[in-house]
Amino acid sequence: MGAALANAFLDQGHPTTVWNRSPGRADSLVARGAHLAGTIAEAVSASPVVVVCVKDYDAVYGVLAPAADALSGRVVVNHSSGTPKQAREAVDWADRHGVEYLDGAIMVPPFAVGKPDSVFLYSGPRAVFDAHRVTLETMGGPRYLGADPGLAVLYNTALLGLMYASMNGFLHAAALVGTAGVGAETFSEIALDWFAPDVVVRYLRAQASEIDKRNFPGTLGTMEMNLTALEHIVHTSAEQGVDAELPALLRAHAQRAIAEGYAGNNYLAMFEVLSKAGPRP
Amino acid sequence: MGAALANAFLDQGHPTTVWNRSPGRADSLVARGAHLAGTIAEAVSASPVVVVCVKDYDAVYGVLAPAADALSGRVVVNHSSGTPKQAREAVDWADRHGVEYLDGAIMVPPFAVGKPDSVFLYSGPRAVFDAHRVTLETMGGPRYLGADPGLAVLYNTALLGLMYASMNGFLHAAALVGTAGVGAETFSEIALDWFAPDVVVRYLRAQASEIDKRNFPGTLGTMEMNLTALEHIVHTSAEQGVDAELPALLRAHAQRAIAEGYAGNNYLAMFEVLSKAGPRP
Ligand SMILES: NC(=O)c1ccc[n+]([C@@H]2O[C@H](COP(=O)([O-])OP(=O)(O)OC[C@H]3O[C@@H](n4cnc5c(N)ncnc54)[C@H](OP(=O)(O)O)[C@@H]3O)[C@@H](O)[C@H]2O)c1
Ligand SMILES: NC(=O)c1ccc[n+]([C@@H]2O[C@H](COP(=O)([O-])OP(=O)(O)OC[C@H]3O[C@@H](n4cnc5c(N)ncnc54)[C@H](OP(=O)(O)O)[C@@H]3O)[C@@H](O)[C@H]2O)c1
Repeated sequence: MGAALANAFLDQGHPTTVWNRSPGRADSLVARGAHLAGTIAEAVSASPVVVVCVKDYDAVYGVLAPAADALSGRVVVNHSSGTPKQAREAVDWADRHGVEYLDGAIMVPPFAVGKPDSVFLYSGPRAVFDAHRVTLETMGGPRYLGADPGLAVLYNTALLGLMYASMNGFLHAAALVGTAGVGAETFSEIALDWFAPDVVVRYLRAQASEIDKRNFPGTLGTMEMNLTALEHIVHTSAEQGVDAELPALLRAHAQRAIAEGYAGNNYLAMFEVLSKAGPRP
Repeated sequence: MGAALANAFLDQGHPTTVWNRSPGRADSLVARGAHLAGTIAEAVSASPVVVVCVKDYDAVYGVLAPAADALSGRVVVNHSSGTPKQAREAVDWADRHGVEYLDGAIMVPPFAVGKPDSVFLYSGPRAVFDAHRVTLETMGGPRYLGADPGLAVLYNTALLGLMYASMNGFLHAAALVGTAGVGAETFSEIALDWFAPDVVVRYLRAQASEIDKRNFPGTLGTMEMNLTALEHIVHTSAEQGVDAELPALLRAHAQRAIAEGYAGNNYLAMFEVLSKAGPRP
């Protein structure tokens, strides 16, 4: 990913200095005109904005700490994955070293870097974001989420959780119809060309403001009714010999919602269940 | 739902006879011109096509068995929810009574019945579907899935499983960003207007044919890399005090995929894990 970011700067003619723990991985960047710094202090001294993308926050400190003096007065834009707590700790570290800090999260794979519709999420001081917006636009379409530095990684984590739940939901569904010889491609004509975007996403979008109001009327269908449907999914999964753990967890959540008093509310009252810690997994 | 189906026939000027266990629930239909049958035998004798929508398959037999003689030579189109096994048993029951049988599944809520883009799924004999297609179009947009009568309820179950997994995924994500004071409406501008349809659904759609080929190359990201991301989601969920069970199950599935030899494959190799029964929940 670091190489993809550097390539985006080179593509747009920016003078670009690169550094990586294993310098050989930068060879193709150097061949395209990047300057390979011999030390991290040399690297950070080359530009007012230092773009970082390594494995995790520990690696960030491992890389930047030896160059803390040279970093003073510069801007660090960190795109490494972590938790909101780690992002806030990074702000403290940056403050102690006189560094301006923006936390980022890259929502696209490396091959999509550099396109304006590739979303990069940022959080931290608005003034830092605004001052360097044009630089950030070199890598993708930057979106500013707010001053809380934890927001970018929090959004990132939330979106990835949505992605994995949806992917497992689709793959479980494909496995189910697969037991009757229906292929994923055939199934996706109904599941992905129509049902997921036009029914599921559209419904959630229309209801988002009701979630904010904690308004979950059961007039068009209740949690109890949805529990019956979830029972069907668990039993059918077992009957057809595919995974039943995912629907069984969804059933358990519906049961918990009912136990907590949401039997007559609509399904989105599940938000109340998922907003609490629940039993330790 | 039965009332919505009857209303669709009335809306389009079809002579419509209705029957319900509790006859009072048909009052508004009668006021609109439906004929209320006094017995189920009278009801089924009124038309060549008998449309059924009750709680489950047991209720179907409870309703239809007393009128088995009158049903002989007619077509039953059943829209009640159940399992593929129950749909196949219903075919046996219909065969024994000389009844032509089509199994259906309604993929929309009652208020959407009667619109041509409201999907109704059907399975069973192609000739029966073709002969009554125009009648079925009164209720929605009928889609024929195949001769195996279990297909309609199997698709229905699979799509609902996808729906619940996606809804819980979204609600969990909304709960996560909610811990930083971000509302569901604000979150959905990124999560539902862009990420879910343009990233997740588009990716799955593009990969569906690769799933059919069991072709899961890890060149753009491996199961191992996704396990790291899932660890982040579990820990962040715990750190922020929201549900961690859903991401923990997704993590457990990724761990199982790795244990089964898919560490270097892409995430869709999860299909192989979910296609097996797994531990009894
Ligand atoms: N790939 C994606 O699709 C994607 C998408 C969004 C976000 N991200 C995030 O981007 C970050 C980088 O991911 P990637 O895909 O580029 O992974 P990668 O190919 O494994 O690269 C990891 C990078 O981190 C460096 N690194 C690891 N441990 C280090 C340490 N202790 N000290 C110094 N450097 C260290 C590596 O240096 P060496 O070359 O010396 O090993 C390498 O430059 C991660 O936080 C990832 O979650 C990736
Ligand atoms: N509502 C939806 O959004 C929706 C969407 C798709 C599919 N469906 C499916 O449609 C079917 C009906 O659902 P619904 O929403 O209409 O539920 P409902 O409002 O609870 O109606 C259930 C119907 O089944 C009848 N019934 C229940 N048990 C019976 C028995 N033992 N003998 C005879 N009749 C019996 C009821 O008769 P009484 O009036 O006498 O109780 C009523 O007509 C279900 O299989 C459901 O899964 C519903």
